Amino acid sequence: MYVDSPDIQVIETIEELQNKLNRNERKNTTVGFVPTMGYLHAGHLSLVKQAKEQNDIVVMSIFVNPAQFGPGEDFESYPRNRERDIQLAEEAGVDIVFIPSVEEMYPTDGGIRILPGRQAHELCGASRPGHFDGVLKVVLKLFNIVDPDRSYFGMKDAQQLAIIETFVRDFNVRTAIVRVPIVREEDGLAKSSRNVNLTYLERSEATAIYRALQIGAELSAQGADPSAIERQVSEYIVSNSSGKIDYVKMLAYPGLGPVTVGAQEVILACAVKFSSTRLIDNIIMSTKDGTYVPNDDEQ
Amino acid sequence: MYVDSPDIQVIETIEELQNKLNRNERKNTTVGFVPTMGYLHAGHLSLVKQAKEQNDIVVMSIFVNPAQFGPGEDFESYPRNRERDIQLAEEAGVDIVFIPSVEEMYPTDGGIRILPGRQAHELCGASRPGHFDGVLKVVLKLFNIVDPDRSYFGMKDAQQLAIIETFVRDFNVRTAIVRVPIVREEDGLAKSSRNVNLTYLERSEATAIYRALQIGAELSAQGADPSAIERQVSEYIVSNSSGKIDYVKMLAYPGLGPVTVGAQEVILACAVKFSSTRLIDNIIMSTKDGTYVPNDDEQ
Repeated sequence: MYVDSPDIQVIETIEELQNKLNRNERKNTTVGFVPTMGYLHAGHLSLVKQAKEQNDIVVMSIFVNPAQFGPGEDFESYPRNRERDIQLAEEAGVDIVFIPSVEEMYPTDGGIRILPGRQAHELCGASRPGHFDGVLKVVLKLFNIVDPDRSYFGMKDAQQLAIIETFVRDFNVRTAIVRVPIVREEDGLAKSSRNVNLTYLERSEATAIYRALQIGAELSAQGADPSAIERQVSEYIVSNSSGKIDYVKMLAYPGLGPVTVGAQEVILACAVKFSSTRLIDNIIMSTKDGTYVPNDDEQ
Repeated sequence: MYVDSPDIQVIETIEELQNKLNRNERKNTTVGFVPTMGYLHAGHLSLVKQAKEQNDIVVMSIFVNPAQFGPGEDFESYPRNRERDIQLAEEAGVDIVFIPSVEEMYPTDGGIRILPGRQAHELCGASRPGHFDGVLKVVLKLFNIVDPDRSYFGMKDAQQLAIIETFVRDFNVRTAIVRVPIVREEDGLAKSSRNVNLTYLERSEATAIYRALQIGAELSAQGADPSAIERQVSEYIVSNSSGKIDYVKMLAYPGLGPVTVGAQEVILACAVKFSSTRLIDNIIMSTKDGTYVPNDDEQ
């Protein structure tokens, strides 16, 4: 496995993966880990690209994690395509793809939960209670199974990333967390596996989300205050699409507290619900001359 | 560090310990881990003895963990003796002793908590809310810092052990958990760092605890039902000491649900409060001919 092989290895059991990635076997070989829920798109593949540049081998997991879906959410309708995913992963240079069943990941449940703190109360946490408990559960399990040197997360799920960074820091988890910028369609819509569930009309309306965030970022650079920015972003989305606003919020990042003097980075984030599809997007901005302007990788 | 040295290494920072125990450095060397709160006694040293038999190097942590003490509990008065502990650990053959400060272990707090399930509602969990959250927090941190092959826990803290076993199983934590039997004084009192906080009179009365549990075990072997056993154990302790009963409970082990037909193992456990000192003890029993009798290592 430690030579450059064109063949991807598909592993379905925890035991086989742990044996393969045992530190006594892999010696000084570094492992980059890309956890996904599958239905891969260019965003996932940018995680793989960066992981390949920084590690000897790349492990991707594909697991639609029931623990992070609430009642009435789209666990059943979340798009899946195992064979296409394996092919895309192989073409991108993934060495091992881990595709466990739900029974393999959750054979027992002693009721222990990892509860995030204040960071989980904002943004998606408000409308998805328990979501980040389920994320932390699967992420800790996957970290323990894969034992990665570096783990790659996309900035689209910025709140998830902030909570995982906090968990890794506070609990001394032995992996480095690497933030990877959002990949967008040509018209600006953030890449998401859920985009395929949009109707044709919704798909064209959904471009309003990123345009609205860009307008918000311009207002921010001009010194507008967070509540004014949030209001204008919301109004733009409502006026230019059939999407319903779940939230539009500007907060300090990654702490997710209110924007106060001294916050180095802020996030302007939103969630918008189309008929059966909830989309999220964000822009991260840094302090500059007394206002917040988008980071270079956001432009 | 991987040759047999008579000198114990005392390490105070996470970074130094992680560098020392890095898997790339230690290769196939196995690490046995003995987490303690210090003030070492023969119980701790039996953990070390077993760890030495099964691993190449033994790491002990000494950390009185504030996260597992509630308001009004004995965090401040918990006995401490750093120099004596280091000497005892060295004599027992510990290779590395990790003694971090509270600031080293908890420099940041993003509010993430690990909440145990139903196992934590019984026994000590009822009178020590949050106790097992604090235990799981420090245990996960220490496992991540030390990365042990095997970790050794005493059966006196049987509920703690049950919850840790559940956590390790459900979250794929990469260490084997080894149960080590209770070590007792000649008069039967379970070894505990807190025993030194008993008055002279309380110390002599405290022997009633184990005598009461033994009476309970005899009743169990005769087929008495759990509630009758609990009542008689309580009555014996109250009649023969000034201790106040926190609980006397017989439950399935390690699940800590009610004793039902089919439970392979049960625990008869108690907590007794003397003036300023709360003591716990237990006997684990296994099913035999329709009743529960103490395990061999309990006799």
